[in-house]
Amino acid sequence: MAQKPSIPKGTRDFSPVEMARRNYIFDTIRRAFSLFGYKQIETPAMENLSTLMGKYGEEGDKLLFKILNSGDFMKGVNQEDLQEKNLARLTNEMCEKGLRYDLTVPFARFVVQHRADLQMPFKRFQIQPVWRADRPQKGRYREFYQCDADVVGSDSLHNEVELLSLIDYVMEQLGINVVIKINNRKVLAGIAEVIGAEDKLVDITVAIDKIDKIGLENVNKELREKGLSEDAIAKLEPILTLSGSNKDKLAVLSDLLSVSDQGMKGIEELKEVLTGISGLEPKADVELDVSLARGLNYYTGTIIEVKAKDVEIGSITGGGRYDNLTGVFGMPGLSGVGISFGADRIYDVLNQLELYPAEISASVKVLFINFGEEEARRAEQVISKLRRAGISCQLYPDATKMKKQMAYANAEGVQYVALIGETELAEGTVALKNMVSGEQKTLTVDELIKTLS
Amino acid sequence: MAQKPSIPKGTRDFSPVEMARRNYIFDTIRRAFSLFGYKQIETPAMENLSTLMGKYGEEGDKLLFKILNSGDFMKGVNQEDLQEKNLARLTNEMCEKGLRYDLTVPFARFVVQHRADLQMPFKRFQIQPVWRADRPQKGRYREFYQCDADVVGSDSLHNEVELLSLIDYVMEQLGINVVIKINNRKVLAGIAEVIGAEDKLVDITVAIDKIDKIGLENVNKELREKGLSEDAIAKLEPILTLSGSNKDKLAVLSDLLSVSDQGMKGIEELKEVLTGISGLEPKADVELDVSLARGLNYYTGTIIEVKAKDVEIGSITGGGRYDNLTGVFGMPGLSGVGISFGADRIYDVLNQLELYPAEISASVKVLFINFGEEEARRAEQVISKLRRAGISCQLYPDATKMKKQMAYANAEGVQYVALIGETELAEGTVALKNMVSGEQKTLTVDELIKTLS
Repeated sequence: MAQKPSIPKGTRDFSPVEMARRNYIFDTIRRAFSLFGYKQIETPAMENLSTLMGKYGEEGDKLLFKILNSGDFMKGVNQEDLQEKNLARLTNEMCEKGLRYDLTVPFARFVVQHRADLQMPFKRFQIQPVWRADRPQKGRYREFYQCDADVVGSDSLHNEVELLSLIDYVMEQLGINVVIKINNRKVLAGIAEVIGAEDKLVDITVAIDKIDKIGLENVNKELREKGLSEDAIAKLEPILTLSGSNKDKLAVLSDLLSVSDQGMKGIEELKEVLTGISGLEPKADVELDVSLARGLNYYTGTIIEVKAKDVEIGSITGGGRYDNLTGVFGMPGLSGVGISFGADRIYDVLNQLELYPAEISASVKVLFINFGEEEARRAEQVISKLRRAGISCQLYPDATKMKKQMAYANAEGVQYVALIGETELAEGTVALKNMVSGEQKTLTVDELIKTLS
Repeated sequence: MAQKPSIPKGTRDFSPVEMARRNYIFDTIRRAFSLFGYKQIETPAMENLSTLMGKYGEEGDKLLFKILNSGDFMKGVNQEDLQEKNLARLTNEMCEKGLRYDLTVPFARFVVQHRADLQMPFKRFQIQPVWRADRPQKGRYREFYQCDADVVGSDSLHNEVELLSLIDYVMEQLGINVVIKINNRKVLAGIAEVIGAEDKLVDITVAIDKIDKIGLENVNKELREKGLSEDAIAKLEPILTLSGSNKDKLAVLSDLLSVSDQGMKGIEELKEVLTGISGLEPKADVELDVSLARGLNYYTGTIIEVKAKDVEIGSITGGGRYDNLTGVFGMPGLSGVGISFGADRIYDVLNQLELYPAEISASVKVLFINFGEEEARRAEQVISKLRRAGISCQLYPDATKMKKQMAYANAEGVQYVALIGETELAEGTVALKNMVSGEQKTLTVDELIKTLS
């Protein structure tokens, strides 16, 4: 007898209940994307390794799942590489393809490959799984979905405003209270510039981020250790203690960054985006947060991050503007801005707060009990009519004991059980039992449809 | 400058228009599955090779995409296998995982792995891509979607009736005229039995299938060459020339197979299924076809195949009953019946017959022209209201020349263009231009929403 089968670590099966919930999330996001004018594309799970390699850093290259060439995969293998066990070269010789690691690189590849067919600005969305050979841990999987929306081919900050509005809309639809935090890479660069520490951008943002946790004294100590001058540390203090409304923060920043062109450009961009989104009266709080420093190695302007207010969990959505999406594929100068919804974390938030609508169910509304051949035939005909009226229902396929069928109905959590026995067959009626209230009524088929619609 | 990027052969990018059409098909099928009580599951793209290998025959093993182990993939490699270039053994030593080849084996694995959590009968559906290292050719891809619905844990033929009704419903929803052909493996076995050629089941079905094309004489010649006796050939003749209604065919078969228990069992099953489905007054023709012999190595009862009437194309849906889905994973005796919609062929049929509803569009309904900062801000506010009313729309993000923006609207095929210029801004109105009729009206925001809803 075979061993009980299993699935690769870091991957998941999704049960019907989980699927009903995930579909609710994905459908909500997909509908919102379409409403906002983003157009769906799909790209293959497998990309050429030449497309993927070198795009995610050295560590990323290792985390790509590579696919062994079909047929004689040893054909191109160099004997020397084999003797030296040069894994990187052997991988290249035995594998031409890999699984996509994110949706951004395939999107960039798509834009370059199909540029002749695309209208710019091009607003695309994509909801597909990605694969990473990361060490699996709680909340981190080797296969997970990304839900990305991007606009490319337009520098306009109206795109940023639209994406913030999209986030606000989706979160409102899902019932999640959020803070949308925004920042601008140019402001961070400006800060580093004015304090004379342009090479310490990352250290500075790390320090800003820690202020609430460890206090000003300790942050300053860390900055000293990183090699920042006393003068720089003194200049940074107003930023470390930045507080109040977005307007207050912008005032302090304007003051401090007045000598930095890029810093002032960043402030101007932030002002424009904040004015734009506040004019749309978002339900979410939109908060300028200079400690926000995600994706510093590719974002060039706006940086966005979304936190759920009522659950302790990392960022549930993020994004930003990048100035050169497709340069690596030989198409320079294409600016874009995009966001990515973290479907798995959103799923966790909805589960914790029990925010799923009551209609979300994996089960049919009505189960028809099977009393034997003739009754079942009649039930099939009634079922056929109900389905045409959009009512989900099914016949219990076997004419087993009533008790077993009712146990099935209970376990499945169906709302109604319909019975067509000898009497109902003769009368052309259906007995309908409400499984919650226990109430039972005898109805004609028309009445049944009316009751269940 | 980098080379223009490409995707692996046999894979596809899907453009927004293609996605809108594919979503229409998948959503139609998904809604139907739910209406009929099938519950969605998803399984990982990667399965352990131990789950996949040996399930699709020797040829199938070769067509599996294998994933190189992460980290030191040479660790478990046997030097002898390397010297002998034993590809099969090396694959096993370097790869633990592969991409799923179909949805049936992962489903069987799922049922065994989660049996404690499943209610039987378990009705599942699954819509996910599969991967095969087949030689790509017209209409055959290395990545394609399967849409499967199966019931396991019930022998009842009501399941067959339901699946036929489901096919009929989906095809009616999609507007495709079809013939649903059904047969029964037991009838084929019975035929082979009564003509004394039980080992020639495949030759016989191939012959039956050819009768329309090459005629009785040539078929008999072929059967002789395959080693069938003159007696067997004579006995087979009434089947080769089987015609008329389902009832007529069943009468001839009953006569011929009266001495075969399994043949008569098959006829009884066919009768029951045909009676059941005809009682539901299907739109599709349902036709008994003894030449139908798909999946003879795993189907054990009913065999189903669906042909489009108005397009020359292979089967667009198929399925059947199997008696032992999960035996290979150590859980014997679980019977099931299932169907699989061929999404790619259905897509081709809908394209050829232009059967997509007019509403299917990748574009927004309304494009707002951008006349500059103040006007665009106002447009954003109107857009926000429209979206909340469910109307898809967007702002052209850049305040470029009107001509360029109108060209974009045309290329995108939007139905309406909305204009908020100086006058409209002052009046609090919107000018709405119908891009088909050319008609233009000035409306308040409330009127705009009413017009577009």
